Amino acid sequence: MNQLKQLNDRIIRRVNVNLEEFDFDTESFVTNTLDHDKMMKFYAFYGITSQHPIYFHFKNSNIAGSYFLGKCHVGRSAIYKSDVRGDELKRKGDNLHYKIEVPLVEDEMITIRDSLLYKTLVHSNSHNLESPEEFGIRNTISAHYANIHGSTLEGCFLGPFATVDLMNLHSCIVGEFSYVQAGELFHRKIDPGTVWIRHPHFEFKYKFKKDVLDNYVGVNSSYQPRGIIYDFVKEREQDYEKLFDVMHLEPIKAPSTSAVNRYAVVKGKINIGENVLVAQSAFLDNAIMGDGSNAQENSYIIHSNLKGKNVTAHGGKIIHADMGIETFVGFNSFLNGKPDARIKIGDGCIVMPHTIIDPDVPIKIPGEHLIWGYIKSEADIETNTIALDDLAEVRDTLQIGKMKFTGMGSVFIEAFRKRIGQILLANGALFNDGEDRGHAQDDQNISFNIIQPYSTGERKGLYPSIRIKP
Amino acid sequence: MNQLKQLNDRIIRRVNVNLEEFDFDTESFVTNTLDHDKMMKFYAFYGITSQHPIYFHFKNSNIAGSYFLGKCHVGRSAIYKSDVRGDELKRKGDNLHYKIEVPLVEDEMITIRDSLLYKTLVHSNSHNLESPEEFGIRNTISAHYANIHGSTLEGCFLGPFATVDLMNLHSCIVGEFSYVQAGELFHRKIDPGTVWIRHPHFEFKYKFKKDVLDNYVGVNSSYQPRGIIYDFVKEREQDYEKLFDVMHLEPIKAPSTSAVNRYAVVKGKINIGENVLVAQSAFLDNAIMGDGSNAQENSYIIHSNLKGKNVTAHGGKIIHADMGIETFVGFNSFLNGKPDARIKIGDGCIVMPHTIIDPDVPIKIPGEHLIWGYIKSEADIETNTIALDDLAEVRDTLQIGKMKFTGMGSVFIEAFRKRIGQILLANGALFNDGEDRGHAQDDQNISFNIIQPYSTGERKGLYPSIRIKP
Repeated sequence: MNQLKQLNDRIIRRVNVNLEEFDFDTESFVTNTLDHDKMMKFYAFYGITSQHPIYFHFKNSNIAGSYFLGKCHVGRSAIYKSDVRGDELKRKGDNLHYKIEVPLVEDEMITIRDSLLYKTLVHSNSHNLESPEEFGIRNTISAHYANIHGSTLEGCFLGPFATVDLMNLHSCIVGEFSYVQAGELFHRKIDPGTVWIRHPHFEFKYKFKKDVLDNYVGVNSSYQPRGIIYDFVKEREQDYEKLFDVMHLEPIKAPSTSAVNRYAVVKGKINIGENVLVAQSAFLDNAIMGDGSNAQENSYIIHSNLKGKNVTAHGGKIIHADMGIETFVGFNSFLNGKPDARIKIGDGCIVMPHTIIDPDVPIKIPGEHLIWGYIKSEADIETNTIALDDLAEVRDTLQIGKMKFTGMGSVFIEAFRKRIGQILLANGALFNDGEDRGHAQDDQNISFNIIQPYSTGERKGLYPSIRIKP
Repeated sequence: MNQLKQLNDRIIRRVNVNLEEFDFDTESFVTNTLDHDKMMKFYAFYGITSQHPIYFHFKNSNIAGSYFLGKCHVGRSAIYKSDVRGDELKRKGDNLHYKIEVPLVEDEMITIRDSLLYKTLVHSNSHNLESPEEFGIRNTISAHYANIHGSTLEGCFLGPFATVDLMNLHSCIVGEFSYVQAGELFHRKIDPGTVWIRHPHFEFKYKFKKDVLDNYVGVNSSYQPRGIIYDFVKEREQDYEKLFDVMHLEPIKAPSTSAVNRYAVVKGKINIGENVLVAQSAFLDNAIMGDGSNAQENSYIIHSNLKGKNVTAHGGKIIHADMGIETFVGFNSFLNGKPDARIKIGDGCIVMPHTIIDPDVPIKIPGEHLIWGYIKSEADIETNTIALDDLAEVRDTLQIGKMKFTGMGSVFIEAFRKRIGQILLANGALFNDGEDRGHAQDDQNISFNIIQPYSTGERKGLYPSIRIKP
C-alpha cells in the first residue's frame, strides 16, 4: 500500500505546483475521494479488437476500471474507475489540417503520466497541433464524471461533471458542471456551471445561476459532488457492479450492424435498431434505440424513444423523453422527464452540452431548435431555445436570457452540423452495404481482459508493469 | 483464426520431426483435441503475488486457463487449459549441488516456445544442470492431465495422465498413465502404464497389465483418453466452469495460516486445518484437511479425512478414504473408495505415483508401508505393498507381483522421505511462529488477471503479446 500512497502524494504535489497561483490544494479532494481499501477491490480491464492497433503500457499504475481500445501509454499513474478510450487516435501518415498540412510521423499515443483521474472519461481524437503524435495528460486530477474529450491537459484540476472538449489546457481549474471548448487556455480558472464555446468566428456563453447549480451539481468544501444529478448516477451504481460480478452475460438481441457493449447496463424492454452503438458504461432501461442512434459512455436512456440517428454524447441523460430524428444531446445534459411530464424534442434539434431540462409538465420543443441552459417550466422554453433558422440570421450579437452569442450564427450552425455528421460517421450510424464502417460495426467483438492489483506487500494496490502489443 | 491454425500446424510439424524415428504423427491427436471454436471461449489467467518475482512475456500465444505465479516466458505457443506454475523457480545466486556447486547467474525462467500443451500442469523446480537458468519446454505436445514436474522437454509427446518428474527428456514418447523419473532420456518410447524411477543407487519398475490400463486410462487411435479415470475427471468438469463464470466468490473459511485457492472447487462440508494448502484446480467435496495437509493442482479429495501433514500430489484422487498422518499420495493416483468400501491408509505410508486402489470391500493398509500398482481386492494388498522396514533390508533385488526393485531399499526410502519433507516445507505445512513460510502462507492473496484472445480478424483465437514485470 505504501507505494500507492507515495504515488498519490507525488501527484497531489505536482498538480498543486501547477495550480499554485490559485491557492488551490487538491489534497483534501483526493483524500476524500480515494478509499484505498476500496481501490483494492476494483478490477481494471482493457478491451482489444482486431480493428484497433494497440500498444498498452501500464507502469506502476492503478488503473481500475479502465477501457483501452487503441494505442496507449500510461506512466506512473493512478486512474480510478476511469474510461480511457483510444479508438479514434490518429495514425502514422494522417494529416492534420491547419493552414498548412501537419503529417503524423508515427501513430498517435495516449500518454497519461503522474495523473490521478477519478471516474473520468478520456476520449481520444485530440486537436493539439503541437504534439499530434502524443495525446498527453500530465499531472492532472479530475473529479467524478468529468469528460476529457480530445483534450490534452497539463497540471489541471477538473471538477465533478466538468467537460473539456477538443482543446488544450495548461494549469487550469475547470469548475463543476462547466463545459469548455476554447482552443487553448493557460492559467485560467473557469467558474462552475459555465458553458463556453470560443471559435475564431463565434462565441457561445451561458452560466448557470448559483442556486440552480447548487441544486443539481454542487460540491462541498473538498470538491466532492452532491446534488440531483450526482444522486441520479449514484443510485444506479449498483446496476454496474453486477456487470463486473459475472464473466459471461447473455448477449443483448441486436442486428448484426449494431454493437451493444458487454459492460453497458441493459434493463427492461429494449429495442435496438440497425447501426446502433451502445458504448461501455452506457445505461439503457426501457429504451427504443432507432436506426443509427447511439448511447455513448456514461449516458443514460431511460423510458425513452430515440427515433433514429440520435447522438447522445458522453454523460448525456435522457429520461421519459421522445427524441426526433437526428437530435443531438450534448455532454452531461440532464433531460429529466417524468411519466406525466414527458419531454418531446423535435427532429434535428441540438441540445447544447450541460443543458438541464427538468419539468413538472410535459415539454415540447419543435424541430430544428438550439436548446441550452435550464428549462424547468414551459415559460423557460422561450429564454432557453431558438430556432436554428433564426440563429442563422445572427451576424453580431444575440442575448436571450442568460445566454450570449456573438459572431456568425450560420457559421456556428454549420460547424455544429459538421461535427454531428462526423460523430454519426465515426459511430457507424451511416454504415451501408459495407461502406462507412464505424464503432457500431468495429466494436462488436471486444475481448475484455481483466487485471487486478497486488493484494499484499509494498506494492499493494498497484499493478505490475504491463506491456501489450498485437 | 488463420494465424492460430498456422501456429498449430507449425508445432505439429516440429514435434513430428523430433519423433520421426517412432513413425509417430501428432497431427491426428491435435486435430481431435483442439476445438478451435471452444478455444475462443476460454479465458487465460495468471496469478500474481507479492512473494514471487514475475517476468511474464506471452507472445502470439493462446494460453487459455494458465496460471503463472513467477517468472515466465512463453514463445509462439498454444497452451490450452494449462496450469503453468512458476513459484519454485530458482533465483540468481542460488546453487545447484552436483559434485561441484553450480551457481545461477540470473533468475531461472520458464520458457515455453512453439509448444502445444493441453490441460497439462507444468510445475517448476527443474533439475537440469546444463541450463539452470532456463526451464525450457520446446516443440512438445502433451495430452490431457499430463504432469510436467520440474522436467525440461524437447520434441516430446506425453500421453494422457502421463507424468515426467524431475528429469530431462529429448525426443521421447511417454505413454498414457506412465510415470517416469529417470534423470535424462534421449529418443525413448515409454510404454503406457509404466511406473519407473531410476536412480544411481536403485531402480523401481512396475507396469500395469494391458486390460487394467485399458479399463482406467485407455486411448483411442488418435490418443484421445477414455476409461474410468478420464470419466471421473470429465464428470466434474462442470464444477470448474462455475468458478470461471463469477468474479467474486465468498472466501472459504480457513485459518490465517492456510490458503484455499479461489480457483479450487470446494463443495459440501469442509474443514480446513492450520498450514493447509488447497491449490488452484484442486477439488474438495466433503473433506477434512488436517493440519499441514495439502491438495495440489488437479487433485480430488472427496468424502475423505486427511489426518495431517498429508501430501496429495498433482492429480492425486482420494475418494472415501481415511489417510493417516504424513501419508504421501503420488501423482495421478486413484484411491477410489466407496461408501461401503472405504480405504484406510495408515500413518507414514507412501502411495507411489500412478497407483490405483479401486476396491469393492473395505481396504486397510497398516502404517509405514509402500503401496503401488493396482489393488482391487484384499488379496492384492500382499502383491502391491511392502512394509518400509522390510524394504529397507533389501540390498540387491526384490520382486513382488509385477513390481521389481533393484538396489538399496534404505537409500530409496531415505530419498523418498527427504523429498516428502521438502514438499511439506515448500507447501508451508511446517510453518510455525513466522518461520518456514511456504505456499500455504504465500499464496493466500493471489491477484488473478484474466485475458481473452482476439475474437475477430486474422489473429482470432490468439492473444496480443503481453509483457508483465513488477
